[in-house]
Formats: sequence, structure tokens, C-alpha cells
Amino acid sequence: MNEKEKLEKFFTQFPGIGPRQAKRFVSFLLFKDIIYVKNLTDTMLNLKQNIKRCPKCNTFFSIKNNYNVCNICMDPRRDKKKILILEKNADLEIFEKASIWKGTYFLIGKNLKINDENPEKSISLSPLMNRLKTDNVEEIIFGLSINPEGDITKDFIKNYLEEQNLLKNIKINELARGLSLGSEIDHSDPITLKSAFYNRK
Amino acid sequence: MNEKEKLEKFFTQFPGIGPRQAKRFVSFLLFKDIIYVKNLTDTMLNLKQNIKRCPKCNTFFSIKNNYNVCNICMDPRRDKKKILILEKNADLEIFEKASIWKGTYFLIGKNLKINDENPEKSISLSPLMNRLKTDNVEEIIFGLSINPEGDITKDFIKNYLEEQNLLKNIKINELARGLSLGSEIDHSDPITLKSAFYNRK
Amino acid sequence: MNEKEKLEKFFTQFPGIGPRQAKRFVSFLLFKDIIYVKNLTDTMLNLKQNIKRCPKCNTFFSIKNNYNVCNICMDPRRDKKKILILEKNADLEIFEKASIWKGTYFLIGKNLKINDENPEKSISLSPLMNRLKTDNVEEIIFGLSINPEGDITKDFIKNYLEEQNLLKNIKINELARGLSLGSEIDHSDPITLKSAFYNRK
Amino acid sequence: MNEKEKLEKFFTQFPGIGPRQAKRFVSFLLFKDIIYVKNLTDTMLNLKQNIKRCPKCNTFFSIKNNYNVCNICMDPRRDKKKILILEKNADLEIFEKASIWKGTYFLIGKNLKINDENPEKSISLSPLMNRLKTDNVEEIIFGLSINPEGDITKDFIKNYLEEQNLLKNIKINELARGLSLGSEIDHSDPITLKSAFYNRK
Repeated sequence: MNEKEKLEKFFTQFPGIGPRQAKRFVSFLLFKDIIYVKNLTDTMLNLKQNIKRCPKCNTFFSIKNNYNVCNICMDPRRDKKKILILEKNADLEIFEKASIWKGTYFLIGKNLKINDENPEKSISLSPLMNRLKTDNVEEIIFGLSINPEGDITKDFIKNYLEEQNLLKNIKINELARGLSLGSEIDHSDPITLKSAFYNRK
Repeated sequence: MNEKEKLEKFFTQFPGIGPRQAKRFVSFLLFKDIIYVKNLTDTMLNLKQNIKRCPKCNTFFSIKNNYNVCNICMDPRRDKKKILILEKNADLEIFEKASIWKGTYFLIGKNLKINDENPEKSISLSPLMNRLKTDNVEEIIFGLSINPEGDITKDFIKNYLEEQNLLKNIKINELARGLSLGSEIDHSDPITLKSAFYNRK
Repeated sequence: MNEKEKLEKFFTQFPGIGPRQAKRFVSFLLFKDIIYVKNLTDTMLNLKQNIKRCPKCNTFFSIKNNYNVCNICMDPRRDKKKILILEKNADLEIFEKASIWKGTYFLIGKNLKINDENPEKSISLSPLMNRLKTDNVEEIIFGLSINPEGDITKDFIKNYLEEQNLLKNIKINELARGLSLGSEIDHSDPITLKSAFYNRK
Repeated sequence: MNEKEKLEKFFTQFPGIGPRQAKRFVSFLLFKDIIYVKNLTDTMLNLKQNIKRCPKCNTFFSIKNNYNVCNICMDPRRDKKKILILEKNADLEIFEKASIWKGTYFLIGKNLKINDENPEKSISLSPLMNRLKTDNVEEIIFGLSINPEGDITKDFIKNYLEEQNLLKNIKINELARGLSLGSEIDHSDPITLKSAFYNRK
């Protein structure tokens, strides 16, 4: 495998990138000068070296902030007793942009696959468990994808924490299911329609 | 305008049909024999002659059922005190297929356009108003499209009935807004996300 | 099957119409008044009664033109010795709109299906054969779809006419295959690319 | 701008990548360990350091091949007197995979933009000009995109070489335009239809 094929293979591992676009990326870099590519690779390495995971919520944050936890977990105005569980950083950013959540987050990184045989290993819940033991948590909201993987992941986390006896007196919620913006009734799937109906108010 | 163009023009008025597909429809009929076309036109005329609108809920039903109201409004098991307001027949069929609604319906036919100048004329609410006066209605649920037209229509109906003093002691609900099946958080629009968040449970 | 279902079934036979859109068509007609529907059905029946097929080229034309052949076959400026074979009327209209063809047409109505067992019955070639016998035809151009059905149909017609010894001294052409407007090389399929390459000029 | 935003910005420059996917790429790299990222950046830098452009045809090739020209330009079986002008490496690979071209290539890197004010600077034609002066070239085929940019680029190159008096006795061809695989006549644009018609054979 030559350099081009090797780099193409790397790019096909990027989310959403197939072989054709991987080729275009390689071609794009070939046409750029070496200084551009050096800047790009330096930025990548800097990112990895200057970013660490928050031990409270699993988000990534810059080590330059001089603290041991991320900006949100450090912010005294954010309610540590309320935890919104999301899959990934991009989900967190959507919530932050919408300015609707004043609590904190916990990122699981990735939903479980259906038939995951070692779910305990696929999701690292220990930071969350530590917070449940020490932070007087009052509410946990699940904000995972509305699909079988998201549901399985939610159920696993709930059961796992319950078995550890960590959910006493904690309100467990999840984001409402219903009709999203732009929905027309006669194009709705029956599962969404039922949610929308039983959650009516 | 010759016959072909005249028929093409008719077909472009059909929902979702542009000029190219209208041409294909005409061509399709040209290649069919006269008996086929006669059967089709007879069926259309029969439909119009044998179907009337239910004076209770505006749905269309066969005059062959020998009653003055539709099957649903006639069914003693359906709760006449609960009314689900929908736009069109196709929406009603989706609800019937999902078997989730045991009350009755009211069809408005079409949502209002934005800037409709005579909303009272665009939607005929008199059958609904009669029911509110006589049927001891307890709950009205709005099940219109989740878009500006649906919202405007809902607000118009609500205000109009309120001004007529017809909504006293009636619970007004609407289908829940939230994340629909298949949603991923980072692809959600902020309006849907807010609904999903504030309706969490 | 009631009237609505019967009409829905008719509409699902229309080209490109699935069950959901068929329902919408029925609903659309239900909301129109009887006069509208009467006008529509009259137009359909008029179309069938006032239109006949040209015995020269198979196109449909209005019987009001008082001639036995269509406008194009009747037009002295159109070269009867050149025949462009197309599938359907919509194809003919595209050519007429583009004003590139000064010869005449022959419509086959429909391409053969793959594995058609009686191709002689599926396509009526007798009007074409009559013209080949009497009109001193000099050029036949095939303008069928660029797909297996189009190719099979073209081959069948060519072989059939050849067996009848009707293609002597006639130039047989077909529309060029190559890169269409908007093509990018690296998105082209290899078959199109080969055509474009071998037809280069 | 922090590291994440900086890297996101780099990725939005990649072909076909918008802000949302750029975010996903960054997130993808954050979740990978440092060794993975180091391997990726090394591969990128290796690519740039071990690949050079062929002075004959502008393709990129590995310096490991120990020659001064690319594999194709070096191959005695490839006809140096025939040059297929393409935009980019991906186009060349499509032709190589289809095994239809036994001549050589010349890559221009990028089509001109419409209204490019310094086309001479945007496309480096000197390697091509050198070959025209020394290699007894017999045929040049243009294989650029079938769109205004491709056409402008083709015309610029042709005129430029002609002004330099470099096209004497050289056959200039271009890939045929016509109906591509899967085309239906009534969905064809008039420009493609005209090409298909006038190139018929």
C-alpha cells in the first residue's frame, strides 16, 4: 500500500466519508503546499496534546483553562444537581447554542450497539457514578437518539445505576417524543404519532 | 387550448402534480382504451354522487350507510365529548389505523394560509360550533401540522370559539411536540429541541 | 371495495402514483364540487373521443384537424424519408420544442420488457413497415431510452425489419451516447465513459 | 480561536465538507488516542514528502519509483503522441480503471473559474507546451467537465496553444457529448439532446 492509499484508508475511517471522497481529500492535500499540510498536522497534534477529558462529564476541554474540570462543570451558575446525559460533544454544543439548559452534562461518547455483549466496557459510567455518590443529584435527563440504539443505551444506564442503588430520590426524565417542526400528520410514523398523542397537553 | 392541454391543466391542479407528470397522465389515458376511461370517469362521478359530508365532523362518507352521519359519529362506542381536530381525511385514516383515538373527529379541510384575510370563510366551523353548544364536549385536541400554517389555524380556531364563549370548561390540548422517531440530537432544529426539553418527563 | 377505494386503485395505476398520493387525489376530488368533477370527466372522455392515432407514426392527434394523419405527417416541409423512432408522445414533444428534427417520427408506445415473450405483439410495427415499403425511407434514427429495455427494443426492431428485408439502403443511426450536460469525469459510469471516448471528435 | 475551532476551520476547507461534518471530524479525532493521530499526521507528511509531480503530465507519483517521471509517462507501451487532458487525478484513475486509454495524460489541476482574470497563472501549461515542442504529438483529447467551467477551460487552453503556434498538425478531439447510461428522452435537457442528435451515428 503506497502513501496515497494509506492516507485514503485513514480518511475512509472519518465519519461519513466513503472511498471517493477520501480520494478527493488526498488529492486536495497533494495540491496544497507542504506548509499548509504542516500547519494542519500541527493543529491536529496540538488538539490532542492540549485537550483533556473532563473527569466530571467526559467533555473535552483545553488544558489551557488551568483547571481540572471543563468550563461548564467549573461554572458556579450551572446546577450540578441536574445532569443531562448526551451522546457526544456535538449534541452538547447544540444545547449550549439553544441556551435552554442550566444544569450540567454527562457524555457517554457513543450509544451501545444492539447486541453489545459487554455494555459495561463500551460505556464508561464511573465519572457519572462518582457524581451520583457525592453531588446530591436531583434530576437526570436522557437526551439520547430516538432509535433502538439510543433506547437500549438509556435502558442499560438506568438499570445499571439502579442495581448500584444510585438512583434513589432522583427524578429520571427524558426528552419528549412527539411531532417535530415541519411534521404533517399523514406523513407521521405510528410510533411518533402515539408518543405525540399520549404526551398531549 | 386543445383537449390534451385542457386535461393536462386539470391534472396540474392535482396535489403534487407538475406539468411533466400531467403530460404523462394524459399520455397514459391516451394509450388506454375508451372502456377503461369510461370506468374511471364513472367511478369519479359515483364517488361524488354517493358520498356526502358528515354534518357532525365534516368527513366524507357513503350515502349507502343509510344514516345521516358518518360511521364514526354514529358509533356508540366513540366518545362524542372528545374531539380531535385534524386537517384532512388522510390524517383521520392514520389515526384510525393506529387505533389510538376513541373519541370523535372534526376535519377542517385545509389549514389557513398565512395572511388569510377571511379566515371565517376559509374554514367552516359551524358544525363544530353546533356540537360545542349541544354535546357537552369535555376535550378538544388540536392535531394540525407542526408549521406556521397549522399554528395560525389552531390559534384562529381557539380564539374564534373563545370569543363565542364556547370553550368554557373544555380541556384544550394539542399533540405533543418533541423528537420524532429517528431523531439525533445534533441534527435537531432548536425549536423542536426546546419543545422536547420543556415537555420532558 | 367502496367508491373511494375503487378510485384510489385507479389512481395507483397512473404513472408514478403510489397509494398515499392516490388517497390525496381522491381527497382532492371529494373537496371539489360536482361541477368541477363533471368538467374533468367530460374532458377525459372528449379526449378519448376526439383523438385518434396517426396511421403513419402512431402519435395521437385531434380528429378536428379533418385529415387522416397527424399535423407532422401532413406537413409538406417535414422530410418523410427520415424517421426518428421514439417511445412516447412526451419524447416527441421534447424534440419538437428543441426544433432540431425536420423529419418525421414513429412512436412505439412502450419499450419491450426484458424477457418479453411476444415482442411482435407488444409493439405494433405495421405502420412503420408500410412506410418502409412505400415511402423511400433513407434514414432511421433510434431515440429510445439508454437502458437495457431501450437497447433490447432497438435490437428487436432492427432485426425484425431486417428479416423482412425492409432495411436495404437505409442508414440506421442512433442518438449519440456520451457525457451529458453537468457530467464530471470522476462521477461517470464506465459504460458512458467508453461511449464518450470512442465517439470523441 | 481555540484548537478545536482551528481544526474545524481546516476541515471546512476540505472538498465537500461543511461546518457540521468538520465538527464531527474533530470529535472523531478527539476520541481517538494520540498514537492514531500521530500515525495519521505522519502519513500526511510522508505523502507530501514522498510524492512529486510528474514534469511531463502533472500527476503526482512516489519518489520511490526512482525515476523522474510518473509510471505512465515512463511506460514504453503508452503512446506519448496522444495526450488526454483531464482535470484531476481522480479522473485519471477512472480512465485507468476502465482500461480504455493507451496514450498519456496531462492534468490541469483545476478548471478555470468563470471570469478568471489571470487564466495563465491559474493553469500551468508549461509542461504541456514543452511536450508539444518536443514529442511530435498527434492527438489531444479534452476530457474536462461538461459545464461552463470545463468549456471555458478547454477554449482557453486551445486558444492559448494556438497563439503559440503549437497545434499545427495536431488532431484536437473531445469526449463525445450525448445521452448517458440511464437517460430517458423526455427527461433530457435540450443541450444534451442536441449533442446526442448531431453526434448520432
